[in-house]
Amino acid sequence: MLTLIITLSVLYTSWLSNTQGTRTDNEQIQAVLTDQKNAWNRGDIESYMQGYWRSDSLLFTSGGKIQRGWEATFEKYKKSYSTKAKMGTLKFSQLEITLLSPESAWVFGRWELQREKDNPKGVFSLILRKFSDGWKIIHDHTSSLP
Amino acid sequence: MLTLIITLSVLYTSWLSNTQGTRTDNEQIQAVLTDQKNAWNRGDIESYMQGYWRSDSLLFTSGGKIQRGWEATFEKYKKSYSTKAKMGTLKFSQLEITLLSPESAWVFGRWELQREKDNPKGVFSLILRKFSDGWKIIHDHTSSLP
Repeated sequence: MLTLIITLSVLYTSWLSNTQGTRTDNEQIQAVLTDQKNAWNRGDIESYMQGYWRSDSLLFTSGGKIQRGWEATFEKYKKSYSTKAKMGTLKFSQLEITLLSPESAWVFGRWELQREKDNPKGVFSLILRKFSDGWKIIHDHTSSLP
Repeated sequence: MLTLIITLSVLYTSWLSNTQGTRTDNEQIQAVLTDQKNAWNRGDIESYMQGYWRSDSLLFTSGGKIQRGWEATFEKYKKSYSTKAKMGTLKFSQLEITLLSPESAWVFGRWELQREKDNPKGVFSLILRKFSDGWKIIHDHTSSLP
């Protein structure tokens, strides 16, 4: 029985490392943000939302206002960015990724929206957790430059 | 044999009372914030700053602006809050403390300054790390309500 368990564990670990490739945690986290940016720039908020933890415990705050839960955050995004013109083109820069443990990380960076009429920008702090299906943002604190 | 059991029981009871007398990480983190609040409300910014990691890598952001390092953060605080009237009375509320690993934690909460002429308030996200001399804030992202 023990041999079976060990064999299955080895097979599972091998499968897991294959599916996740040889990307480091840092690269996997970077990919979450790149996927978000690309989804945003296609006007696809639902795919953008895949970077966030699909849980009622997701905590999102921007401009001093708080959204709790994946659904509430998704609704807020759809309401605030109802057209492609409002979404503009998203750019992240100067990303700093810090692993806090094998299953948790902190990301700090700058965001910018290039839109026809304005160019809002600011900074964000993220906390990510590593789940069985990869790294997800569990907390997002976004600020705008005045 | 009986002597061994009695000895083990005594040791266990002694160990239990020691661990119960020790503050949990949650309580230690709570104490960092309480000490900060008390220092602020005495007008003592230098003691307030003891809650922060004394390092050039401390990352503080508020209102979209970034301070890097303990000294830069201290200077910013001294400049923005040069009088007791500007400091007002600080209150933290609805603190949510989440341990991310035995050595790292995330805190989300609300802050408020009661001042004679206004009442600024907002939210903050902190990342703390446990050092040999206790928990320290390594990142502070503070936002104000508009």
